[in-house]
Amino acid sequence: MRFTSGTSFDGVREQLFTLGEIPGVLWTPEGAVGTRPLIVMGHGGGRHKKDPDILSRAAHFVTGGGFAVVAVDVPGHGDRPKDVELDRIATENQARVAAGAELAPLIAGFQALVAGRTVPEWRAALDAVQRNGDVGAGPVGYWGVSLGCGLGVPFVAAEPRVRAAVLGLGGALASAADAARITVPVEFLVQWDDERVPREESLALYDAFGSAEKTLHANPGPHGELPAFERDSALRFFSRHLN
Amino acid sequence: MRFTSGTSFDGVREQLFTLGEIPGVLWTPEGAVGTRPLIVMGHGGGRHKKDPDILSRAAHFVTGGGFAVVAVDVPGHGDRPKDVELDRIATENQARVAAGAELAPLIAGFQALVAGRTVPEWRAALDAVQRNGDVGAGPVGYWGVSLGCGLGVPFVAAEPRVRAAVLGLGGALASAADAARITVPVEFLVQWDDERVPREESLALYDAFGSAEKTLHANPGPHGELPAFERDSALRFFSRHLN
Repeated sequence: MRFTSGTSFDGVREQLFTLGEIPGVLWTPEGAVGTRPLIVMGHGGGRHKKDPDILSRAAHFVTGGGFAVVAVDVPGHGDRPKDVELDRIATENQARVAAGAELAPLIAGFQALVAGRTVPEWRAALDAVQRNGDVGAGPVGYWGVSLGCGLGVPFVAAEPRVRAAVLGLGGALASAADAARITVPVEFLVQWDDERVPREESLALYDAFGSAEKTLHANPGPHGELPAFERDSALRFFSRHLN
Repeated sequence: MRFTSGTSFDGVREQLFTLGEIPGVLWTPEGAVGTRPLIVMGHGGGRHKKDPDILSRAAHFVTGGGFAVVAVDVPGHGDRPKDVELDRIATENQARVAAGAELAPLIAGFQALVAGRTVPEWRAALDAVQRNGDVGAGPVGYWGVSLGCGLGVPFVAAEPRVRAAVLGLGGALASAADAARITVPVEFLVQWDDERVPREESLALYDAFGSAEKTLHANPGPHGELPAFERDSALRFFSRHLN
């Protein structure tokens, strides 16, 4: 893990890094010393590690809860090179949808494919970040919606260090089997008028989680337009389970 | 409105009162002076104004948010006399269920009947309580689940002083038309394994609310067994909308 640049804003220290070929960013409270809970964040499709939706939530988790937060670019996203295989499949999928195919199963298949790469990448990032003195081997949480849910469910299922997860805007098609292996507390976000994930698919994924504590938060509106108060709710959820 | 007794515990002042023939209880912060937001609470079926579920939440709203809280006994409940008509209908309904009738439509019909009495009673209680110096004409919220939802939906629809409502454990059969007239923010609680309210009926009531801000919180478990963290969520919801 190699830090490439650092800056600070509003009480948040931001450090860009590379881990092998993976570009990432670590946010910590300015002046932080010693072990603290860490939240791994997964960005959405076509977005990147410093997408405004990620950045604003990360800063909120850092300043509101004293958490460390890490995000890395998913293959083919952000500062990573174009990925020939993923591009080819995405192009084929667009053609299929144009020809009348259902969107949800295609998204699900694509996310399962990408997860095969990101799960080991994220576990390696977690190993590396926890070796830093201002993070350490504390409890870990995961936050990810949309693509960040499709990739997050297999990650949370595979990674025993994750003790609580905020997931959402995703359906059962991609990840019901992995969801059944998750037993940590889950806060699951549904947009009631989601035009990308059918409501029944969302509710089926919520059903699939193996967790004794799992809470579903639904709000009106289209995919991605989460209300601001869910940001506070996520902070309280992580504070309850990681502190 | 006549206060009949008063006591204090853990920073909460509790005053029993009667308003005509309606027995009620008002909780305020100990030593409170001046206008403050007021939460009206509706108790569940077969319960009463000082049921432990009501009392613990009321104390949390008073000490956590500085709210005043009022609850009154529903006809035929608590310190009110037996109600011959309601008793007769309840007995008939039990016989119908024993004979194989569906429970949900019978509950819905019963709640609509009771609401015809409680809506004017609760509005009168609100008038009376707001004339007290330690309450005053501040913003009003409503909290009620199960019977407290079946009666609460028509109350919130009818009462323009109510600016935010926590409702739940109820279905669309009883109150979809009234729900459509509600436009204030709603936090709606669903027990995912509710044995009394079919899940589709719960989701249909959530759909029916006319509010631009409405958030559905679902949790595993049977009717009535709301997780403790929903108490905190309700406090934050009221604090956001009434303060």
